[in-house]
Amino acid sequence: MNLSERARNVQASPIRKLKPFADAAKARGTHIYHLNIGQPDIATPRQMLDVYAQYDDTVLGYGPAQGLDDYRRNLIRYYKRHGIMLADVDNNEIIVTTAGSEAIVFAMLVTCNQDDEIIVPEPFYTNYNGFAMQTGVRLVPLTTHLENGFALPSRQAIEALIGPRTKAILFCNPGNPTGAVYTAEEVQRLADIALAHNLYIISDEVYREFIYDGARHTSILHIEGIERHAIMVDSISKRYSACGARVGCMVCRNRELMDAALKFAQARLCPPTIDQLAANAAIDVEEEYFVEVLTEYDKRRNIVFDALQKIDGVVCRKPGGAFYVIAKLPIEDSEDFALWLLDKFEMNGKTVMVAPCEGFYATPGLGKDEVRIAYVLNEEALHDAMKLFATALHQYRKMQGRRP
Amino acid sequence: MNLSERARNVQASPIRKLKPFADAAKARGTHIYHLNIGQPDIATPRQMLDVYAQYDDTVLGYGPAQGLDDYRRNLIRYYKRHGIMLADVDNNEIIVTTAGSEAIVFAMLVTCNQDDEIIVPEPFYTNYNGFAMQTGVRLVPLTTHLENGFALPSRQAIEALIGPRTKAILFCNPGNPTGAVYTAEEVQRLADIALAHNLYIISDEVYREFIYDGARHTSILHIEGIERHAIMVDSISKRYSACGARVGCMVCRNRELMDAALKFAQARLCPPTIDQLAANAAIDVEEEYFVEVLTEYDKRRNIVFDALQKIDGVVCRKPGGAFYVIAKLPIEDSEDFALWLLDKFEMNGKTVMVAPCEGFYATPGLGKDEVRIAYVLNEEALHDAMKLFATALHQYRKMQGRRP
Repeated sequence: MNLSERARNVQASPIRKLKPFADAAKARGTHIYHLNIGQPDIATPRQMLDVYAQYDDTVLGYGPAQGLDDYRRNLIRYYKRHGIMLADVDNNEIIVTTAGSEAIVFAMLVTCNQDDEIIVPEPFYTNYNGFAMQTGVRLVPLTTHLENGFALPSRQAIEALIGPRTKAILFCNPGNPTGAVYTAEEVQRLADIALAHNLYIISDEVYREFIYDGARHTSILHIEGIERHAIMVDSISKRYSACGARVGCMVCRNRELMDAALKFAQARLCPPTIDQLAANAAIDVEEEYFVEVLTEYDKRRNIVFDALQKIDGVVCRKPGGAFYVIAKLPIEDSEDFALWLLDKFEMNGKTVMVAPCEGFYATPGLGKDEVRIAYVLNEEALHDAMKLFATALHQYRKMQGRRP
Repeated sequence: MNLSERARNVQASPIRKLKPFADAAKARGTHIYHLNIGQPDIATPRQMLDVYAQYDDTVLGYGPAQGLDDYRRNLIRYYKRHGIMLADVDNNEIIVTTAGSEAIVFAMLVTCNQDDEIIVPEPFYTNYNGFAMQTGVRLVPLTTHLENGFALPSRQAIEALIGPRTKAILFCNPGNPTGAVYTAEEVQRLADIALAHNLYIISDEVYREFIYDGARHTSILHIEGIERHAIMVDSISKRYSACGARVGCMVCRNRELMDAALKFAQARLCPPTIDQLAANAAIDVEEEYFVEVLTEYDKRRNIVFDALQKIDGVVCRKPGGAFYVIAKLPIEDSEDFALWLLDKFEMNGKTVMVAPCEGFYATPGLGKDEVRIAYVLNEEALHDAMKLFATALHQYRKMQGRRP
């Protein structure tokens, strides 16, 4: 019994190799600080949790394929309030999806045929690989570099990647795993290229609310003249620390595109109903919630960045958004180090789990000396985790030095 | 800006043309009996709804990609209790999916490459078309007939459809839209063919709990010797009248296949968390719930079937399962009739909406004189709806007769 080629080729989770070692460490009683995943510890807003508690329908029924009307209207209100859109979006220009993941799959399905190409700045969110495999799309990496904060390459460098099968540019802004926030000029550069070459532009903005240092996020919906090209992908997972709700959306002013996306949405019937009601209640979460959350993440960012700065041989740039930072380590194989952290290292009964970066690059060989750290733990835990990390790296290097 | 070919070709919902007429009828104040959709009116079990009310975690976090461990263990217990499996299924042989829809998509992805073929008895659940378009799979229809209750054709007829690109047989048992329940012999016939021709066999069993007349359902997990071939698709939507929860699963004893499916599952991170907890609580819903629900549906089935039997020129067979019946009407174009019901007909301020069957067939021209009726309303409403239906059909035929 042969499986399909795509089943044989689909990429495993980059931390899959680490998982059994993490399980074994836990079984030994070692506490693991999880800096490897984007699961925030921030409380989900009370307004959302109250919706679950107060649900009083007797039949938990289907909602509309495009999402609850009321929720879509309120989402528009949210985007307006936050100055995300240049012009009014119509209710039919939003489809509520089962998390941001499904929005990306729909965007790939309606823009690309089998073997068409999408340009993506790398390092990128590894699950884009899974969605591309699922939809038969080929991702063409546009390499960005830690040394300049993963800034967007020049127009020329980007255009060099455009071929006859290129259909879209996909980017995550602020970036996972980079933490980079594109300037208005960078987003405009992508928009100009999309216009000039008749490409779609898919802007994954699920970390939009996490921008530091008073900078401003530029949504793709804020760029003039690319209404027919631009697809915005969003999710409530990070915004409200509600990853388990699985509610996202896609927004696009190209009605023909949205009509087609809706047909794919109709096939799967609807996104989860009560979770959408909870997302709807979150629309009016007060500004203070975001201010508090951002202040908290900002502290964490500083803790991690300062700690990394102090480690000999570590290179990193202060990330402007999301809750990730990539660090280049003075070692050869960050996966080996991440594995060793779980398998061999512990201090006071504790260790640290980080994500090796190789899986975030599509170009072979890149990222082998980099790790991604998610600062999703509280201050105290982060201080401790970074102390462990520094000690471990020191020990690991000494040990490596001793190897023949 | 061209959309992808699949975006241009993906099938619209078969009731899409009817929707604006239904909206207009409602706007005129006409009450519509919805016999066109599979949204049951049965109450969701209290145990499930209580889970939402009692959720007390402060962070609504991700669950595992394969679904909550506890829920998967309990699902196995449920299948065992109902005699669905021949042998014990391991926890790793179940992946919890975002409703049955996602399980079908995963099954197509791991068994087929682009342009590979899956044989499906028609009429079939129209959304299979959407999933096939999404995964690049070609559905090859195996025509079944109302006159013999949509029984499975002979081995020879099925084998005639097998070509070099055939990878699987997909069937829904009990059937939507047919209401047909395959006998143990019919399921065995499919299994024998799958074995003989090295095909996968995907059994969509989301209506398993709705079997009438004391008959027994044969799960694909109950057939010996096809463990590596058989993929069972399930969902809680119909079983517990919890369509809005979006919780399904796929079960397969072929570990290699499940490892690959898990990689696609990892890309979308996880199914909804609280909804899974609700599904988990449903495992111990007492037998009386099912007995009551089945008794209720059985009454409804009889009301609809008896009413159809009494209408001159209508042909139908008593369905053995699910909550649908297909009726062949003495008219030429059932879509025109369904549209007329909404646009022109009303009696005492009420009308009926039914699903024209053409969209359930892949072979052009079939099903044009058939409608599917979902008996998901209470007895009183059904009696009234069927009276309206009979009156309307009579009027429509008279009017047709007057046409030149």
